[in-house]
Amino acid sequence: MKVAVMGASGYVGGELLRLLLQHPKADLAAAFSKRHSGEYLFRVHPNLRGVTEAKFAAYAEPARIADSADVVFTALPHGESVKVVPSLAETGVKVVDVSADFRLKDASKYRTWYGYDHPAPEVLKDFVYAVPELNREEIRRTALAASPGCTAITSILALAPLLSEHSLGVDREHIVVDAKVGSSGSGGKASLSTHFSERYGVVRPYKPAGHRHSAEIEQVLAGVCGEEVSVSMSAHAVNMVRGILSTCHVFVQGSPNPVDIWKAYRRVYQGSYFVRLVRDKEGPFRLPDPKLVVGSNFCDVGFELEGRTKRVVAFGATDNLMKGAAGNAVQTMNLMCGLDEREGLNYAPLHPV
Amino acid sequence: MKVAVMGASGYVGGELLRLLLQHPKADLAAAFSKRHSGEYLFRVHPNLRGVTEAKFAAYAEPARIADSADVVFTALPHGESVKVVPSLAETGVKVVDVSADFRLKDASKYRTWYGYDHPAPEVLKDFVYAVPELNREEIRRTALAASPGCTAITSILALAPLLSEHSLGVDREHIVVDAKVGSSGSGGKASLSTHFSERYGVVRPYKPAGHRHSAEIEQVLAGVCGEEVSVSMSAHAVNMVRGILSTCHVFVQGSPNPVDIWKAYRRVYQGSYFVRLVRDKEGPFRLPDPKLVVGSNFCDVGFELEGRTKRVVAFGATDNLMKGAAGNAVQTMNLMCGLDEREGLNYAPLHPV
Amino acid sequence: MKVAVMGASGYVGGELLRLLLQHPKADLAAAFSKRHSGEYLFRVHPNLRGVTEAKFAAYAEPARIADSADVVFTALPHGESVKVVPSLAETGVKVVDVSADFRLKDASKYRTWYGYDHPAPEVLKDFVYAVPELNREEIRRTALAASPGCTAITSILALAPLLSEHSLGVDREHIVVDAKVGSSGSGGKASLSTHFSERYGVVRPYKPAGHRHSAEIEQVLAGVCGEEVSVSMSAHAVNMVRGILSTCHVFVQGSPNPVDIWKAYRRVYQGSYFVRLVRDKEGPFRLPDPKLVVGSNFCDVGFELEGRTKRVVAFGATDNLMKGAAGNAVQTMNLMCGLDEREGLNYAPLHPV
Amino acid sequence: MKVAVMGASGYVGGELLRLLLQHPKADLAAAFSKRHSGEYLFRVHPNLRGVTEAKFAAYAEPARIADSADVVFTALPHGESVKVVPSLAETGVKVVDVSADFRLKDASKYRTWYGYDHPAPEVLKDFVYAVPELNREEIRRTALAASPGCTAITSILALAPLLSEHSLGVDREHIVVDAKVGSSGSGGKASLSTHFSERYGVVRPYKPAGHRHSAEIEQVLAGVCGEEVSVSMSAHAVNMVRGILSTCHVFVQGSPNPVDIWKAYRRVYQGSYFVRLVRDKEGPFRLPDPKLVVGSNFCDVGFELEGRTKRVVAFGATDNLMKGAAGNAVQTMNLMCGLDEREGLNYAPLHPV
Repeated sequence: MKVAVMGASGYVGGELLRLLLQHPKADLAAAFSKRHSGEYLFRVHPNLRGVTEAKFAAYAEPARIADSADVVFTALPHGESVKVVPSLAETGVKVVDVSADFRLKDASKYRTWYGYDHPAPEVLKDFVYAVPELNREEIRRTALAASPGCTAITSILALAPLLSEHSLGVDREHIVVDAKVGSSGSGGKASLSTHFSERYGVVRPYKPAGHRHSAEIEQVLAGVCGEEVSVSMSAHAVNMVRGILSTCHVFVQGSPNPVDIWKAYRRVYQGSYFVRLVRDKEGPFRLPDPKLVVGSNFCDVGFELEGRTKRVVAFGATDNLMKGAAGNAVQTMNLMCGLDEREGLNYAPLHPV
Repeated sequence: MKVAVMGASGYVGGELLRLLLQHPKADLAAAFSKRHSGEYLFRVHPNLRGVTEAKFAAYAEPARIADSADVVFTALPHGESVKVVPSLAETGVKVVDVSADFRLKDASKYRTWYGYDHPAPEVLKDFVYAVPELNREEIRRTALAASPGCTAITSILALAPLLSEHSLGVDREHIVVDAKVGSSGSGGKASLSTHFSERYGVVRPYKPAGHRHSAEIEQVLAGVCGEEVSVSMSAHAVNMVRGILSTCHVFVQGSPNPVDIWKAYRRVYQGSYFVRLVRDKEGPFRLPDPKLVVGSNFCDVGFELEGRTKRVVAFGATDNLMKGAAGNAVQTMNLMCGLDEREGLNYAPLHPV
Repeated sequence: MKVAVMGASGYVGGELLRLLLQHPKADLAAAFSKRHSGEYLFRVHPNLRGVTEAKFAAYAEPARIADSADVVFTALPHGESVKVVPSLAETGVKVVDVSADFRLKDASKYRTWYGYDHPAPEVLKDFVYAVPELNREEIRRTALAASPGCTAITSILALAPLLSEHSLGVDREHIVVDAKVGSSGSGGKASLSTHFSERYGVVRPYKPAGHRHSAEIEQVLAGVCGEEVSVSMSAHAVNMVRGILSTCHVFVQGSPNPVDIWKAYRRVYQGSYFVRLVRDKEGPFRLPDPKLVVGSNFCDVGFELEGRTKRVVAFGATDNLMKGAAGNAVQTMNLMCGLDEREGLNYAPLHPV
Repeated sequence: MKVAVMGASGYVGGELLRLLLQHPKADLAAAFSKRHSGEYLFRVHPNLRGVTEAKFAAYAEPARIADSADVVFTALPHGESVKVVPSLAETGVKVVDVSADFRLKDASKYRTWYGYDHPAPEVLKDFVYAVPELNREEIRRTALAASPGCTAITSILALAPLLSEHSLGVDREHIVVDAKVGSSGSGGKASLSTHFSERYGVVRPYKPAGHRHSAEIEQVLAGVCGEEVSVSMSAHAVNMVRGILSTCHVFVQGSPNPVDIWKAYRRVYQGSYFVRLVRDKEGPFRLPDPKLVVGSNFCDVGFELEGRTKRVVAFGATDNLMKGAAGNAVQTMNLMCGLDEREGLNYAPLHPV
């Protein structure tokens, strides 16, 4: 199976390369990069030194890309992907897009959240928003997939079981998602904000209001529970490179007990290898912590219940470049191509790290 | 003015020593420690090497302590402080307690939150819960003060203006406080959880439900707004030693605008040197970040407004050992002793650090 | 091929389990742990949650272990391994020992460096000190291997080409090895020194004199150059969990040029996949840096030349748990068992991380 | 006493402002910055928010600067300072220069080390290279001082006692200085190398050969011991913002004992408040560690002796922005102005931090 990556010089592109170069069923046909065409991959992604002698290719016409690849990953900035993907899609090649351009079903929301009118609203319906743990079968049947945003998928996996369990009576107007994100989530471009001396040791509010991933989360959760859902999201940059913890504060009615909530999680994630349920009574890691997923495609989920305030605190933890981006995209490709979803993703996390 | 510190070997005790040794109006009469009696202070607090040749003293009788000191700081674990402070109080010496034992006005809440029946409920009313920015005059008149918990004061200072502004119509049932806390907040005792290899790089849920500081916050906010308030608090250990960011998600009615909210903050904190209002349009530090208060007694507060979800996200940032503990205690002492509240606390934060 | 791990609950043991559980040619027959017998592996190594349901086994008799396994890894403390390994060795089972107990050829050096008389000096000659890049063929023929210490192998790989190149005229009396080591190198036991608040942000001299790995390095380098070599080693604990940078300051005679030195490195490491030569003119990573080997079995080596002081500064960088311990042990097993040395070790490093 | 700072927008400039704004005997007359003229200081140095409402001034003519200030600190890049300082010096104002432009006595060395011909070689002799602990009296008498480079002063203070003690027989040809430096030492300019995701967690060789501070160290040590000294220096960027550890490997003749070496240190630093001798038998901090000087003007020095290799390993630890730059400059100003050298520098380090 031949694969190509467009936008291969960014952090997500680099993680896709790392995974695809080691994927037992995939051959990397091309890694496209406008800026770095002709350079060795390892000049931009220094971890790949010794791993590959391949070079970045200059952008080619969609038809030519489709000739040489069975699957194309598009890891382009939002607004850029939409310029390329529709013509790629027309060739019939499989596409896994990791930008935001095909995630929202309602084209008008691109104006609201991204500030532009979607130039190809008619293709949105052809894309499957890919959270394999929630819509595996749908992904198996599609040729076009939109892989979620990193904080989106992490929060969705933490929240979906609660929204799916109507007996909990979730207060859909007051769902608070408080995310803590590593630096790699904001990309590889240097600036004063990302200068080490300024960025080290921070807990920096980052998109405290109007976070664009809110739209994706609301879309999926509405699908899960059959009603409109409002997500109040705030993100923070914290002192690490990889990882997200999404803390979801959910108010419920009645008097739920932990066992019932636990059952809801088990029911939803039964058979989903990459979601681990974490809720221990002892040890340093009793609830999800991004430290424990670094380098892997796992999303750890768990929860705590506060009876007094009728609140469930649900947690999701991912490596933002893996399950939060490239890992989920490869898992999606596996499903789209009829492979075991774990193929090429069988990495145990590192510990300690 | 002579001062003594009980429980001087912990992190808060050490920070008190650092501040008091350099305080222009205070003389350190004694630093008491059961375990380290007779040792040099700098053996336990290695930063004090070269700063002082003083040694820890063995615990003395309250009457003797009161003879030698005008003010006593009690930095003991909760449950221990209450064994000592009442008899100290009887001597008439001024006491600033930094444990939890005298923070709650309603004795029954000690059973609820701390799991013990308060052994001296009658003294609770004599203590002022000291947040100088909210009750400066009251502190000036008391001889007995309880200094708040670190996440409590950080959250209180972020939230008080919102609760004090009735026109906002704060939803008092759905106030979410999501705190991110440095390691020094949990003290100096080694364990597997705090072992560097296990603790480095975490975003670890820590007291996601039932956090004891909730009780203090609710008590103060109820005082501010005149009605019961429910606080839904979750704390997280993050990858730093000093600092707290408290992210407070508050739902409001109507359609508030930032200017009005800003005014509420200005009104409450006018004349309060140690609260800085942070809400910038550019630069890396647009909202409070604990990185910017390290080593100082500042509490930075600021907010963002999300119209769509009718949510105000209010932030408080402190150095947990300073404004979150020892700094606030010294500020309290200054007020109790008729000094300028800034005396001995005039440290600009370090940057970068 | 069946493998067993003794001392499976430590950090090196855990890394061995992670590698062996994913090794395509190895089956984990048993993970022995005195303290954790009967517990799930993932209770002690939380990264293995979801990866395996296996449990720790109680220690068995050597004969029984040898019945169930083709290769045994002994990841025991020095002084403990020597109590077990000789009887294991007698059974004919292959042993890869990662303790220090079989690394030194001269039994008397155990008294000098480790403070005990080696209880089985006669077996030392049967062990191959395994640095595959230097003695691959010897490893292929042995049944008993001693895997080097983490700072030892990192320094050896940086230094060997210089010592092997007689024309350089290395001053063998003034070789300085200044190592910077992550916390995982000192194991999983909690103490005040490793308490996060005390350990975070340090550059702490750690074994500035008398570092035991000096003995191994001297032994190997003497073999390489045919003469006695004196190594002056100092190690430092730095602010990371995984990784070692070994900076080796070597004085030379004459006027070497970089090209000749470069050739010496190429000659020695030709065909050695796991040693990468790093010496770039631009980019952030011009010389070896442990950040770029995390999660992999690579050892990056490179050098700079200072003509003025007739000094070559040679660098080696490893992930101390991988090439510095478990990774090298698995590579050694691969060779001992006739497999490709890369089998089960084909991990590209993570970046960024 | 009125003071002015030129180049006030850099990290060293910011640290000078922080110290001078809180200095009991100094009034900040002006903070000059070409780029930020007219802006509030706290926009560039966000820690100063709430501390001062002062603004950056546009560069003025030397004569005007000298009219308004008694002392001028020049914190300009090397090559820039030399354009301004000579004309400032002519006015008779006191100057403390923190660039490299006036540190070396031999003008020809600027060609060797900095790549330019010094444009004002005749003024070099008028400058005192200021290490108060070594030449306090000389500083008291000068109007022109050059404050050392950060790794230079840290290494000099670690090494001077050894070089001053002739009986040790220091091998002056093989002195290795291996420095570990925090990010603030390389300034506030963002680049790919300093991008958090690329810089976090590194141990990155930085100037492994040809480090310019070598020249200063050699100059001072030659003065101390009366003979030429060759320093072999390599620096590394490590995972912290503030701090330097300088590890100095020194070979000696004969059989020195720790007591004699200790005496040499005591003799040299007797009466020097800001040098602390650290050499403990227990606790986490037995030797100098930059973690323990953060925020202070201390330089901690200590050593270990390796008899086998006839090596003394001497350590120096500073906060690179304090004793390594701004703190030493203020200490120098104090001496030049007849003040107690501790004035305005009386900060105990923070711990833990």
